[in-house]
Amino acid sequence: ILKYLYFALLSGPSSFSLRSHTCGELRSHHVGHRVILCGWAQYLRQDLFVILRDFSGLTQVLIPQEESASHLKAVLSELTAESVIKVTGTVRRRPAGQENKMPTGEIEVITEDVEVFNVCCKLPFEIKDFVKKSESLRMQYRYLDLRSSQMQKNLRLRSQLVMKMREYLCNVQGFVDVETPTLFKRTPGGAKEFVVPSREPGLFFSLPQSPQQFKQLLMVAGIDRYFQVARCYRDEGSKPDRQPEFTQVDIEMSFVDQTGIMSLVEGMLQHSWPAEKGSIKVPFQTMTYEVAMRDYGVDKPDLRFNMKLIDITEIFTVEVEFLRSALSQPGGSIQAICVPSGARPLLGKLRLRCAELLESCGVSLRDPSAFHFLWVVDFPLFLPKEDEPEQLESAHHPFTAALLEDAHLLYTEPHKVRGQHYDLVLNGCEIGGGSIRIHKASEQLHVLKNILKEDPSLLSHLLEALDSGAPPHGGIALGLDRLTSIIVGADSIRDVIAFPKSFRGRDIMSRAPDTVSEEELKPYHISVRWPTEGGEEGK
Amino acid sequence: ILKYLYFALLSGPSSFSLRSHTCGELRSHHVGHRVILCGWAQYLRQDLFVILRDFSGLTQVLIPQEESASHLKAVLSELTAESVIKVTGTVRRRPAGQENKMPTGEIEVITEDVEVFNVCCKLPFEIKDFVKKSESLRMQYRYLDLRSSQMQKNLRLRSQLVMKMREYLCNVQGFVDVETPTLFKRTPGGAKEFVVPSREPGLFFSLPQSPQQFKQLLMVAGIDRYFQVARCYRDEGSKPDRQPEFTQVDIEMSFVDQTGIMSLVEGMLQHSWPAEKGSIKVPFQTMTYEVAMRDYGVDKPDLRFNMKLIDITEIFTVEVEFLRSALSQPGGSIQAICVPSGARPLLGKLRLRCAELLESCGVSLRDPSAFHFLWVVDFPLFLPKEDEPEQLESAHHPFTAALLEDAHLLYTEPHKVRGQHYDLVLNGCEIGGGSIRIHKASEQLHVLKNILKEDPSLLSHLLEALDSGAPPHGGIALGLDRLTSIIVGADSIRDVIAFPKSFRGRDIMSRAPDTVSEEELKPYHISVRWPTEGGEEGK
Repeated sequence: ILKYLYFALLSGPSSFSLRSHTCGELRSHHVGHRVILCGWAQYLRQDLFVILRDFSGLTQVLIPQEESASHLKAVLSELTAESVIKVTGTVRRRPAGQENKMPTGEIEVITEDVEVFNVCCKLPFEIKDFVKKSESLRMQYRYLDLRSSQMQKNLRLRSQLVMKMREYLCNVQGFVDVETPTLFKRTPGGAKEFVVPSREPGLFFSLPQSPQQFKQLLMVAGIDRYFQVARCYRDEGSKPDRQPEFTQVDIEMSFVDQTGIMSLVEGMLQHSWPAEKGSIKVPFQTMTYEVAMRDYGVDKPDLRFNMKLIDITEIFTVEVEFLRSALSQPGGSIQAICVPSGARPLLGKLRLRCAELLESCGVSLRDPSAFHFLWVVDFPLFLPKEDEPEQLESAHHPFTAALLEDAHLLYTEPHKVRGQHYDLVLNGCEIGGGSIRIHKASEQLHVLKNILKEDPSLLSHLLEALDSGAPPHGGIALGLDRLTSIIVGADSIRDVIAFPKSFRGRDIMSRAPDTVSEEELKPYHISVRWPTEGGEEGK
Repeated sequence: ILKYLYFALLSGPSSFSLRSHTCGELRSHHVGHRVILCGWAQYLRQDLFVILRDFSGLTQVLIPQEESASHLKAVLSELTAESVIKVTGTVRRRPAGQENKMPTGEIEVITEDVEVFNVCCKLPFEIKDFVKKSESLRMQYRYLDLRSSQMQKNLRLRSQLVMKMREYLCNVQGFVDVETPTLFKRTPGGAKEFVVPSREPGLFFSLPQSPQQFKQLLMVAGIDRYFQVARCYRDEGSKPDRQPEFTQVDIEMSFVDQTGIMSLVEGMLQHSWPAEKGSIKVPFQTMTYEVAMRDYGVDKPDLRFNMKLIDITEIFTVEVEFLRSALSQPGGSIQAICVPSGARPLLGKLRLRCAELLESCGVSLRDPSAFHFLWVVDFPLFLPKEDEPEQLESAHHPFTAALLEDAHLLYTEPHKVRGQHYDLVLNGCEIGGGSIRIHKASEQLHVLKNILKEDPSLLSHLLEALDSGAPPHGGIALGLDRLTSIIVGADSIRDVIAFPKSFRGRDIMSRAPDTVSEEELKPYHISVRWPTEGGEEGK
């Protein structure tokens, strides 16, 4: 009978549930209410109280001491920590002087009935926020690690953030959420793509690094405004701290220019920014790639502190006087550290190291609660290949359009062309990037064939699509894991992913990747090439 | 200057865009407004009009005939169909008698300026709704096929449907959207899981068929209410019309029973049901598996029509009189069709065939615009294995809890146990299924080890988790592709997926799966086992 009473609560966190309230919501105005709470026995106190926890907080539950309730006392007193129970009882005000500062600190619940759902065995670590656990223990027992209040907060903030982004894109701006395949064709030169053997001998799918081709095809298809919170894959091989799968907020629009995409993203972040993290101001600051490299030595400067790089070449060539004067001091000398191949990306790192060093000495430089967004624009469209400097490669990807004023250089001096590419930087981390795309087949063919020297037949479907009435279009992808980790102030993106891979790219909890029998590989027409037996190219 | 004017429109489908309005929105109250439209030249009419199309509809654009605008006339008259243009002009009321029924049929736009973004080459088929295309042509040129008004509607309805579901789960009911990994460990006996080779010799990830283990672990982790619109993978081998990747709305709750999950799903579907499809009534009808099999011969009956199966055994054993009387007629005979191995799942199919037959003869039986939901409950928990009938296997999966009143039979007569499993059926299609899970490690171990005879060490992480304070929990997964296809009345789920695999499981547009060089396979320590050279088990 009571059950149907609770079912009347058709919205909120206790709807459709065995409980009437969560452990975090009871206040003094609930005094006298009969309630049902479900949760974990956080700990027992003085054989008098059980501190009951769920995702929302803690409630103090009184263990009855009367003889008539001895069975309840017996059950509750013997509970191990982290056992799961249901308590039926009545809310009362705590005796004067026993209140505390926790949100439910004014009340307690007198137990009238208890049901033990599950008794908890001994755990590898205690579920208390101050208990430090090693990374590998956290990963192995992730389902326990996630019980910490910090991880609960992180996952809930992420869910809210994404929900607000969806509301903005879908409900406010008319975007269409379209799912695109993850079993796709291998990208030419896609060395970072996982392969997935099919049941046809020698034929493989590939897990794409982004929905780039699909989002452009959706624009050709007239979808007009696409977004997707897209799972992407990247096999970075032996690099540590990689996540082989990650999530990006993927956006593409037709009939738009660079300013349009940038304004959209600013609006979306402003709309979805968690209230408790303060508000953010738009428009964001914009800086050209050239200025970023000159003043900060990186293409993603952290603007929470100044300390620009200053070119003092002039001083050394003209005003050597100050050096002479320094030398004229007693014991005067001029010293320098010579950094071999001390190129510019290095000076940028040195600037960050300086900041860290100063902060470690107590100099307050960067406000950890500040969020400084920056657009970096006017990137070079092509860069010399590292191992073959006379040959050009795309600075980002081959679909980026040239800046209008540089477009004529595509056919004469491609290395001078700047692209309609924009990176979004937050506190010195790149959290997104995008571009206006080439929408003319002839231009795309020229870039692929004549500048990048790639085989255009591998992208024939895209070239054909551009020739079938492609609108001007552009988009962006935001790295959701990184963005969330900066917002919550986490050291690693592993702290905002429910079940991340370990530092070495493994799932320690379930032990993946794992062996598969030759028998199970047969339908896929592959066999393992063990290093000992097939290290050489032998048949 | 004008551009910044449009930027003032900070919400809606023309925000941040080069256009001021969409092609579907102009009405008589816009007469006199200066507008900018972007879109596709659907067709030219009498050299006087361009019919301009975007996702939202069509607008008639007037080609100026004056000598002073001869350049505009030249540009517009030479447009090929599906070329992409921007038109600046003024809205005017159509001359009397030239109005039509289309939404913008009261107005037209007098061209003042035009920009051609892209000229369209000859297409493999016309973008007109009445033009029939072969399935393979549709798949090869999917970006053109998606321009049809039906596919535009389908994808937009799907996006809205999911958005509403998210609002209900996340904003109304306090669910947390949590992403779970798709690179996971192979499930014991997971013959339908794609394998993904890792860079460690002989070790493979697997693409899971559902986030089943993760959602249960999230309950152990205290997330309380989880949902995810989850990409799932299933390698059905040679079966035609399979989609190797599909999407499910995946839900799990703690402290809930079967009624709770069922009410939640009813609330979600009612909240998210597209207004143009009428409303749906809750609660849905419920039927036991036993009754479904007895009365309809299937576990997913289509209740839009009656035609129950009637057991007439009685008649034949007792009242043979009517047979005699039939025979006594002139030329009287009794005829029957003998269906070899005419088991019950067969009678259910026959019932559906009868319905199809009657409908093809003009008998109105099933209302195509009706949506009849049905819960089927009380399934058997275990079924005899097909090839080894003395051995039991899970009817759904090994994590389903027994009905409370049958739980004691788990240890004595497991074949009699019914499970806390529920299937959701819509118009005779299973669109979802779920269960209350086993939350005690000892019971789960008993099911795995003693009943199913499986190696429990493969699920040791789950057993360990259940022993660490697992709350009672349950959930459901709804097949989003199937649900959407029934709502829009599509014949195939391919019509509600932007880029589906073909009937044979391939991406015809990009030609995936595709070959990968031995060189590219090297990092993954696998090689192709060609049928000719290695069909046998040879080294």
